[in-house]
Amino acid sequence: MITIVHSSDWHLGRSFHNVSLLDDQAIWLEQILQQVIEQQADALIIAGDLYDRSVPPAAAVALFDQFIERFRCQSQAKLIVISGNHDSATRLGFAANQLKHKGIHFITSFDDMLEPIIVSNASGEQAFVYGIPYCEPLQVRHHYQCHVSHHAQAHQFLVEQIKATLDESQSNVLVSHCFVDGASGCDSERPLSIGGSDAVAWEPMQNFTYVALGHLHGAQYRGAKHIRYSGSPMAYSFSEQHHKKGCCLVLIDNEGLANVEQLPLQPKRRMRVVEGRMAELIEQAKEDPNADDYLMVRLTDTHAIMDAMNKLRSVYPNILHLEKPGMLGQIPNRPQANDQIKQSELSMFADFYQQSLGRELTHEQRSLLTELLTDLHKQDV
Amino acid sequence: MITIVHSSDWHLGRSFHNVSLLDDQAIWLEQILQQVIEQQADALIIAGDLYDRSVPPAAAVALFDQFIERFRCQSQAKLIVISGNHDSATRLGFAANQLKHKGIHFITSFDDMLEPIIVSNASGEQAFVYGIPYCEPLQVRHHYQCHVSHHAQAHQFLVEQIKATLDESQSNVLVSHCFVDGASGCDSERPLSIGGSDAVAWEPMQNFTYVALGHLHGAQYRGAKHIRYSGSPMAYSFSEQHHKKGCCLVLIDNEGLANVEQLPLQPKRRMRVVEGRMAELIEQAKEDPNADDYLMVRLTDTHAIMDAMNKLRSVYPNILHLEKPGMLGQIPNRPQANDQIKQSELSMFADFYQQSLGRELTHEQRSLLTELLTDLHKQDV
Repeated sequence: MITIVHSSDWHLGRSFHNVSLLDDQAIWLEQILQQVIEQQADALIIAGDLYDRSVPPAAAVALFDQFIERFRCQSQAKLIVISGNHDSATRLGFAANQLKHKGIHFITSFDDMLEPIIVSNASGEQAFVYGIPYCEPLQVRHHYQCHVSHHAQAHQFLVEQIKATLDESQSNVLVSHCFVDGASGCDSERPLSIGGSDAVAWEPMQNFTYVALGHLHGAQYRGAKHIRYSGSPMAYSFSEQHHKKGCCLVLIDNEGLANVEQLPLQPKRRMRVVEGRMAELIEQAKEDPNADDYLMVRLTDTHAIMDAMNKLRSVYPNILHLEKPGMLGQIPNRPQANDQIKQSELSMFADFYQQSLGRELTHEQRSLLTELLTDLHKQDV
Repeated sequence: MITIVHSSDWHLGRSFHNVSLLDDQAIWLEQILQQVIEQQADALIIAGDLYDRSVPPAAAVALFDQFIERFRCQSQAKLIVISGNHDSATRLGFAANQLKHKGIHFITSFDDMLEPIIVSNASGEQAFVYGIPYCEPLQVRHHYQCHVSHHAQAHQFLVEQIKATLDESQSNVLVSHCFVDGASGCDSERPLSIGGSDAVAWEPMQNFTYVALGHLHGAQYRGAKHIRYSGSPMAYSFSEQHHKKGCCLVLIDNEGLANVEQLPLQPKRRMRVVEGRMAELIEQAKEDPNADDYLMVRLTDTHAIMDAMNKLRSVYPNILHLEKPGMLGQIPNRPQANDQIKQSELSMFADFYQQSLGRELTHEQRSLLTELLTDLHKQDV
């Protein structure tokens, strides 16, 4: 049995609403390390977006450096990382050829892609891990002098390159950072393609024993249960408040079948949306054992409240964002007809009022406004 | 005999007058590698400023990555690098603990400083290499909770820390990136201290077998012949046109004495200053086998020349900077006395003319100016 822990989208060094998440990241890094040790994993795979940007903050580099250090001291597992769309392949790949002798593998170039990393255990069982570094279709076209114009073609081309070299009688694991057609995204992923389609097909990957995917932050499989996104280890947006974050424990048996289980991670603080009136929320916070979660608060009061953010912060210290749907109606945007421009001031104002507050003008408000407008028109003359 | 090649101030990724020097850097990187191989060196020391800035361009990271790769394949020598004032210690130190198992040592923290790197040869001879990562006095004060307020104190304090741990019966090599008092700088070094003194004393270091210094770009020793700057491997400013660039070959014999020899490096293009009249220079270029050197041209013609830069570039393709001392006198700056402010317009202008062109006003110019000023004064009334 080959045991692999599959994770992705660590985004080390990420901030959210100007708050650094490094402390939170240190917590689940430790949990992942403990899982690798407890499960006696033979490999830990990180399927891209190790860092949040091509030049990560020095503190994020230091955090990962500490992780590598402890990982290497406390575990025999191989560490296999591919570059994602947020990473700089060149920077991530520095000294990769030296580090692989220590069982630390960065797959960041097309050359790395065709050379499998052999993961083995004490009984001599093996799995061959192939990783596709994230790349643009243009890079594939350029490097292989082939005619691929979008992500689906480029990805399939690369998968075929790997398939042409591998031994199908072995357990083969593919690692890729991509958007598989039909999968569910969330607010914290950066689209891989602006204007074009970034979706790739799952079918070309189906003959691998297991496919460890990265890019999407919600755990899910696509096409078949062995073609799987581990999801990010923590929520990076409020749209992920109901995600169950964790990593995948992949057990590959003697018959080359992958059994997958989700290993949960416990965040230091959750990311949640809380909704209600100010008075209720303040009251509620007193009983809330997780009042230090990262919060988006949606305030439903319909009257103005002075200094609402600071009032809420005194009970919810990590409130990150405040919305006031009670004050400003969340009416879906409607295309503005040219006709509206021709409307009278009164009807235009009535419309504006309705769009902003979600209510019609009352009869009294309408009379007052008519008077006011008449007065103004008199002054014009 | 322990054989060490000492270099420093590589500044990989540096540009000069907006021209990237990466191609030039690749040339002498190869020459240094060949020297290490030919001399069968036991270690290559880089005494700081490996990169030109804390976040080096990705191409510079890739260039050094290739160097490490070839160095590790073709030589048994240890590679020892300390961080300089241009480097980011955190970024340079990434994965350092893993890389040292491959004989690649990055010394970037106070902890690294006290753990010598043992350089040995086939006959079992040894030298102990201690490196001081570049640091500000404030960092030393903070880390050791000691009272040091400037570079000299901080550096001496760190040297004492090392001396307290070492075995004096061995050959001990110190690596440091600092400005030793009285040494000669040039235009391409960034001062270590603005406003304060950045100078440190050589005396505390004199009991080491050899001291491999970095920071100054001109090769020189200070205090004693074994306390030495290798200088940068290439000129990074025109002020270095007469430097002989190279690295130091250090041979430490059985009696613990260091013998030093300069190994020259041949630049792809030299950095030179060329002076003369346009017509002479153009003529001269035809006979110049090194017309593609990086040039600063000082044009001595006293009349205006249209498009001088492009005319020169057609014969000197890598001209980087043009000065026209013939057109605008290069008179040394003089402190402006308050008295001058009280001078008449005529004498002020005469002075300005003299400072700018290096010539006195002629009698005719002076008459014309007097007329003009009289006219202007009439209009004032």
